[in-house]
Amino acid sequence: MVKQDRAIRTRRNILEAAAKIFEERGYQAATIAEILSTAGVTKGALYFHFESKEQLAQGVLHEQDQRFVIPDRACKVQELADVVLLHAYRLQSDPMVRAGVRLTMDQHAEGLDRSGPFLRWSTVCRQLLEQAQAQGELLPHVIPSVTADIMVSTFAGVQSMSQTTTDYQNLRFQTSALLRHLLPSIAVPSVLASLDLTESRGETVHEEIRHQLQPQPATAVR
Amino acid sequence: MVKQDRAIRTRRNILEAAAKIFEERGYQAATIAEILSTAGVTKGALYFHFESKEQLAQGVLHEQDQRFVIPDRACKVQELADVVLLHAYRLQSDPMVRAGVRLTMDQHAEGLDRSGPFLRWSTVCRQLLEQAQAQGELLPHVIPSVTADIMVSTFAGVQSMSQTTTDYQNLRFQTSALLRHLLPSIAVPSVLASLDLTESRGETVHEEIRHQLQPQPATAVR
Repeated sequence: MVKQDRAIRTRRNILEAAAKIFEERGYQAATIAEILSTAGVTKGALYFHFESKEQLAQGVLHEQDQRFVIPDRACKVQELADVVLLHAYRLQSDPMVRAGVRLTMDQHAEGLDRSGPFLRWSTVCRQLLEQAQAQGELLPHVIPSVTADIMVSTFAGVQSMSQTTTDYQNLRFQTSALLRHLLPSIAVPSVLASLDLTESRGETVHEEIRHQLQPQPATAVR
Repeated sequence: MVKQDRAIRTRRNILEAAAKIFEERGYQAATIAEILSTAGVTKGALYFHFESKEQLAQGVLHEQDQRFVIPDRACKVQELADVVLLHAYRLQSDPMVRAGVRLTMDQHAEGLDRSGPFLRWSTVCRQLLEQAQAQGELLPHVIPSVTADIMVSTFAGVQSMSQTTTDYQNLRFQTSALLRHLLPSIAVPSVLASLDLTESRGETVHEEIRHQLQPQPATAVR
């Protein structure tokens, strides 16, 4: 067990170093030597976990996915909005998420398949939209697969413009504005009226998850 | 006049070479030497028009703007949609527009201010939205500056996901889907019912402009 814990920590350590270097230098210019020296691990340790630069990048890209999991909501459109608002919050607060998004948008990353995050995000959104549809939350003309692609691609653009023009300073406002522009074409009016799309929502959801993950104090047994 | 024509041709020639090299290599890796050899001009000719790599890139970025001009429409929301649909069409058919968009999205272009195209596009959209608002085409809550930023950033994301996942094969479909998702939150129902947002609209507008620019045959005078 102790050995396994150490392996997990080393892997995490390497991924954090890779995230830092990929973000600073871009995929094409980044080298394994730089990642090694930032991580402070041996070549053997690195190659035990990752066989190539592409595998390192895919590791960083996959770290975004593990942060998809958000609390179940009775209203599936709210759950979908929470996925987007939480991602915007983490993009500002979590270097690994930021590195993953930057890699996804790195057009000059030759030999790196960057379609994965777009397609995986799209699947998450499509599944939530299908559940929302089954519950009668969506307008009749909505096609979940088409709307899912629009949700993912538009958020990618909003974060990109926010980063380029304000270094993410206006990201929460823009993400909230995005949802207020898209959701009236997707959800029925009674659902729209119940949604929380405010700028502080992402942080609220983040705190909710953090609280759930904390070890609960042992209950006194009488 | 002849001399001026030649200067315009040389400048255009250099910009086309720069567009090609920036698109292939990314801003950071591109060199003036490669642009020189692709353009087949002398160093003196290049530096007469552009003093630095950044000026060359800004030249390519500005080429997008000159292609903003589209025919006046009575309905300003249609004119706004035409700007977006025509841009999507040109992104597939015009290497200079594609290079400009790629440079705008090039996160690792150190020392290159990429905010210009976002801000200029946003101004064009805001002005059209203000005209639409003055004519009563918009829903009462719309704030033109906020909606303009959403139009620009969402299209940037749609083109980026389309390029990454399908090499622009689904760009016209996605652009049409984007407008069908956004405009119901922006325009009043009677305007929505009159819009042409079909996938072929971009090409139709392109042909309309091309036809207008062609020299008209001399009218026979009796």
